[in-house]
Amino acid sequence: MSKVNVGIIGFGTVGSGTVEALIENREIISNRAGTDVIIRKIADLDIKTKREVVVARELLTTRAMDVIEDPEIHIVVELIGGVKAAKEYILKAMEGGKHVVTANKALLAEQGQEIYQTADRYGGSLAFEASVGGGIPIIRALRSGLSANRIKTVMGILNGTSNYILTRMPQEGEPYNKVVQDAVDLGLAEDPPTLDVDGTDAAHKLAILISIAFGSPASFEEIYREGISSLTPDDIRFARELGYCIKLLAISRVRDGRLEARVHPAMIPRDHILANVNGAYNAIYLDGDLVGPNLYYGLGAGKKPTASAVVSDIIDLARHIRSETDVIMPPLAHFNPHDKGLLIRPMEELSSEYYLRVSALDKPGVLSTIAGILADQQISISSVIQKERETGGPVPVVMLTHEALECNVQKAVSLIDQLDVVMDKTVMIRVEKR
Amino acid sequence: MSKVNVGIIGFGTVGSGTVEALIENREIISNRAGTDVIIRKIADLDIKTKREVVVARELLTTRAMDVIEDPEIHIVVELIGGVKAAKEYILKAMEGGKHVVTANKALLAEQGQEIYQTADRYGGSLAFEASVGGGIPIIRALRSGLSANRIKTVMGILNGTSNYILTRMPQEGEPYNKVVQDAVDLGLAEDPPTLDVDGTDAAHKLAILISIAFGSPASFEEIYREGISSLTPDDIRFARELGYCIKLLAISRVRDGRLEARVHPAMIPRDHILANVNGAYNAIYLDGDLVGPNLYYGLGAGKKPTASAVVSDIIDLARHIRSETDVIMPPLAHFNPHDKGLLIRPMEELSSEYYLRVSALDKPGVLSTIAGILADQQISISSVIQKERETGGPVPVVMLTHEALECNVQKAVSLIDQLDVVMDKTVMIRVEKR
Repeated sequence: MSKVNVGIIGFGTVGSGTVEALIENREIISNRAGTDVIIRKIADLDIKTKREVVVARELLTTRAMDVIEDPEIHIVVELIGGVKAAKEYILKAMEGGKHVVTANKALLAEQGQEIYQTADRYGGSLAFEASVGGGIPIIRALRSGLSANRIKTVMGILNGTSNYILTRMPQEGEPYNKVVQDAVDLGLAEDPPTLDVDGTDAAHKLAILISIAFGSPASFEEIYREGISSLTPDDIRFARELGYCIKLLAISRVRDGRLEARVHPAMIPRDHILANVNGAYNAIYLDGDLVGPNLYYGLGAGKKPTASAVVSDIIDLARHIRSETDVIMPPLAHFNPHDKGLLIRPMEELSSEYYLRVSALDKPGVLSTIAGILADQQISISSVIQKERETGGPVPVVMLTHEALECNVQKAVSLIDQLDVVMDKTVMIRVEKR
Repeated sequence: MSKVNVGIIGFGTVGSGTVEALIENREIISNRAGTDVIIRKIADLDIKTKREVVVARELLTTRAMDVIEDPEIHIVVELIGGVKAAKEYILKAMEGGKHVVTANKALLAEQGQEIYQTADRYGGSLAFEASVGGGIPIIRALRSGLSANRIKTVMGILNGTSNYILTRMPQEGEPYNKVVQDAVDLGLAEDPPTLDVDGTDAAHKLAILISIAFGSPASFEEIYREGISSLTPDDIRFARELGYCIKLLAISRVRDGRLEARVHPAMIPRDHILANVNGAYNAIYLDGDLVGPNLYYGLGAGKKPTASAVVSDIIDLARHIRSETDVIMPPLAHFNPHDKGLLIRPMEELSSEYYLRVSALDKPGVLSTIAGILADQQISISSVIQKERETGGPVPVVMLTHEALECNVQKAVSLIDQLDVVMDKTVMIRVEKR
């Protein structure tokens, strides 16, 4: 095969980044693929608006089916995002014998099983490096570089927007809403950045990582989600005083034969390798039975990093098409067919250390009442910070607990919040040390 | 192909780790390879000494050629290390049509071109993930995950032993020799750990990374090498005062069409992502034109992490053998045949910032004499630390320079060291900020 033809559906930010990369790095791409990689068609509803990259008019079409049905096209690249139309196009392309590259995390997280199985049925390849961690080749690390390992833990900073917000808050002591607005103004976040800050985007990516790392078809809906909007500069300051920083973490870990799967703000020690992951960067920390702890770090989004992943997928597929081989690694390679997969442990059964910040009136006996409620729920305290009294107003009572059960902590917090002397909802942040 | 047969040459630490992994994780390995992966023969000069892993007596042989000539064996795994015998075995195996997996960094760094070309000639695969960074899948990241990128910078902590030593020195303020002896006593380093601490091991690994990252056949001998043995706890303390830490870095960077290639102690800012890489860990930092900055982190040596890489290579090859395909990615895929490769820039032409520690008698005019010598060489100073006088003895004069030329700094240091008031060799450490 002297050339491999690519058709692209979606000419937005990632689409035009992909086209630009295929044109600008054409020589090294052909070298590495062992064949010319040619853009044959680009479909988008809007083919009028000017893009930064210039392409020949005749490559453009408004009909996705023009790409899917073109018999000369070997690889269909889906970059429109969203679930419904993208799914339809991908399934049609697979049925037509195309190889598919996608960056669509929502689709894979919510309906990945059907997509993987369809790819398997029609014998096509499905490559989706860009769906998690932007340009970081984390999907390949799990599917190939670490394939000898039983993975025990996956823990990641998977959303750049929320990491940018959490990085800026402690530096500048600014409240959450102000920093979010700045991120939107700078073009770093959607307006409003709901799916970024409420944990949905990170949970989508975690669902994909779980399916590969643990060979277990995780459903996105089963992943516990909690966003960063209730965090205050105070919490970030207290965390720092205690030797921690706060990150929005996506965590999955095998424990006692079941899988933890959760996205929430977490405190990690300041010398943890994830603690220096700042700004819009992402990082994925893994632990495997052979390899031990591993970390992968890079820009988690953006036109060029995402194009890096999409085009690297295209090169890998082109190498296969060129040598006219079958699919080497079926999409389901990491699923054990004899295995229903690991069950996800309900959040109430989580065992963790906790940070609690109670807003209480500074009256005699308040700390002892709170401590009593915690003791009743088998929660023991490892350290307390109580700040000086502000005349009249509530004072923050900050506590770190030893390991305790989530259900007990939830119960204790709800009892504490019913006390007359407690003036605001108690903030609870889980602590991750490993 | 219902099973893939593996023959292993070398039953030492990595060899027995590989055998153990193939046995213990057999089920997941077969699942992911899509075929059974069977150990058919293990060759070692010593087959008497008991290993931690138990294997059937009839698998063992003292003759490497029994492995290489076995027609049932698909994959030959070379794990004896060293250059001469290993090269002979690998070339023979390739000539016999075997696929080869090796962890041999010295061989690939010193004679990689011949090995790569032989693999190419006979159409076999050559996999060498374990040769750099232990279990970190950095070779795959470069060859596959980042294949769309023009790589601009590779910068790594590639030797765990020296990183362990540098991590312990500032924590405990212990002198170099004491920490090295502890590392040897703990089994973390060879006795003496010469190739680890003099930069040879890191330079071997850098030569391999350069050949892939830049598609340029770097010769190991061309890489500038400087070890860590002249560093003192004082330097580490001063670096910290200035906001830096000291790491043994392997650095390669394209600048003005030529390649920097060097291994030496370097100061990096304490908030640099490489600064938290401590103990026996390795990390590789990359910058690509699309992906931007990337980091890969994990254990750089040891039985299990190295076995993780070796077995992951075996799984990838088994996937190919099973589907009876040609080599998908030839060993030379990242070399541009029309290109002689980038020339390596001579060290004297390096432009960098520098840390200098001069041991001078505390007499009037000393600082001005030193500053004068620097000024004569076009070197300007960005900060100075001069410590209080100790009666009689020399005092350290610590300086950070702005960007200067290596040849000028070398000249200035040699002039400074000739001064009567200078009592000891001046310590010079390059500063890396990116």
